[in-house]
Amino acid sequence: MSEKNITQPIILVTNDDSIAAPGIKALVEAVKDLGRVVVVAPDKPQSGMGHAITIGHPLRLQKSFIVEGVEAYTCSGTPVDCVKLAVDKILHRKPDICLSGINHGANHSINVIYSGTMSAAMEAAIESIPSAGFSLLDYSMEADFSAAKIYIKKIVEAMLSGKMDKHLLLNVNFPAIPEELIKGVKFCRQAYAKYEERFLERKDPHDKTYYWLTGEFQNFDEGEDTDVWALANNYISIVPVHFDLTDYKVKKELETTWKF
Amino acid sequence: MSEKNITQPIILVTNDDSIAAPGIKALVEAVKDLGRVVVVAPDKPQSGMGHAITIGHPLRLQKSFIVEGVEAYTCSGTPVDCVKLAVDKILHRKPDICLSGINHGANHSINVIYSGTMSAAMEAAIESIPSAGFSLLDYSMEADFSAAKIYIKKIVEAMLSGKMDKHLLLNVNFPAIPEELIKGVKFCRQAYAKYEERFLERKDPHDKTYYWLTGEFQNFDEGEDTDVWALANNYISIVPVHFDLTDYKVKKELETTWKF
Repeated sequence: MSEKNITQPIILVTNDDSIAAPGIKALVEAVKDLGRVVVVAPDKPQSGMGHAITIGHPLRLQKSFIVEGVEAYTCSGTPVDCVKLAVDKILHRKPDICLSGINHGANHSINVIYSGTMSAAMEAAIESIPSAGFSLLDYSMEADFSAAKIYIKKIVEAMLSGKMDKHLLLNVNFPAIPEELIKGVKFCRQAYAKYEERFLERKDPHDKTYYWLTGEFQNFDEGEDTDVWALANNYISIVPVHFDLTDYKVKKELETTWKF
Repeated sequence: MSEKNITQPIILVTNDDSIAAPGIKALVEAVKDLGRVVVVAPDKPQSGMGHAITIGHPLRLQKSFIVEGVEAYTCSGTPVDCVKLAVDKILHRKPDICLSGINHGANHSINVIYSGTMSAAMEAAIESIPSAGFSLLDYSMEADFSAAKIYIKKIVEAMLSGKMDKHLLLNVNFPAIPEELIKGVKFCRQAYAKYEERFLERKDPHDKTYYWLTGEFQNFDEGEDTDVWALANNYISIVPVHFDLTDYKVKKELETTWKF
């Protein structure tokens, strides 16, 4: 046991639904035997925060509780702030791996860009910490994470057992179905699918207009190699993600056509 | 003049420093003769908001003023909210082009991911609106935008005169030097350069700890084809950006090495 302690990896866990969400508890339970798990999660829901960081306000850290025997803290900032603070002020080193989630709701397709869950994982990957974000296609607080937990353990074991690229970043989504209906794991590309937004217009008691963001999800991508396709066909989707946003094809085109 | 009005493009302008920032005024002045300019900008600074969207609160729009003869509104949300609301509630159609900035401070290298300026432009590109974000390497409110304005006009003219891909997205950064010292425009890739962060620890009057994000910019990328290199060598950098974050190389590797 003491030998295991010496060599066991440090696993940083965070999310965007806050430390109180059942999803992060499920994630901790899934991986707590694979290393020393340290949780640093937002103290309130931070969905849709994208890669926001807190510049104009100070941040707070607070000791918290999530699962017996697991160190846990809350942070007053965004998911990305959680990762930054965990490394600098709690771990005082980079963890071996960073896991984010399990998100209550899908983060496939274009959602990777808006998702606080995936932004936390991306922040880790930028900082040379291999990482993965996990999401279940069920927004409910009563969502059933049991199948996701089984596969998360397998995926994290695979990550820890191989030689991981230091910038490895996986976007993992689970269909909301029982384990026996899951057909397997598919490595996918990000679908071009997104919310078609409309704002709902209302009047406040002072007769002034305000707007609520609403929208319907639409898939514009016919490909059968996408995350949306995999999930619709009862597969777990894994999209490897990178943070070099350069469009090399367009770069080449512009170099030959644009002159100043 | 009336003929021009019929065919003139609709140019949506936004930023993340708020409608009161000199940078957005400079951008409007640079392009106001190229089409019908409509400004929808945050009513307060939104730097570092990344691709955050407002889900849990309603949003407000307010008529505002920026430059004589130009329609302008403020929005209570993030830069991405501004683009969404502009399309749905102000323009009632997609503009021909969306321009974001001029940001007070650099958005080269990894900053593209944290930047509200670039996230607004990316939101437009996702919505099939060709777009560009502009940033000057000077944080000051007294920054000199005169050289940037000259080049922005040329770049936007080039965008409007050619056949633009509907997802075209340019990240344009200007060195903070006078026009005569600018060596030209370079098409670049995004450098692997980032802030090395440390949190400053302080005590509040109740002896509780709080943290301020601080950091120093560091370039880990030796390439001479990067935006950081171009800017350090007195070039304007243009990085074409895309929002398919799939890492196709890693996808291929994992498909052959990982089995579940």
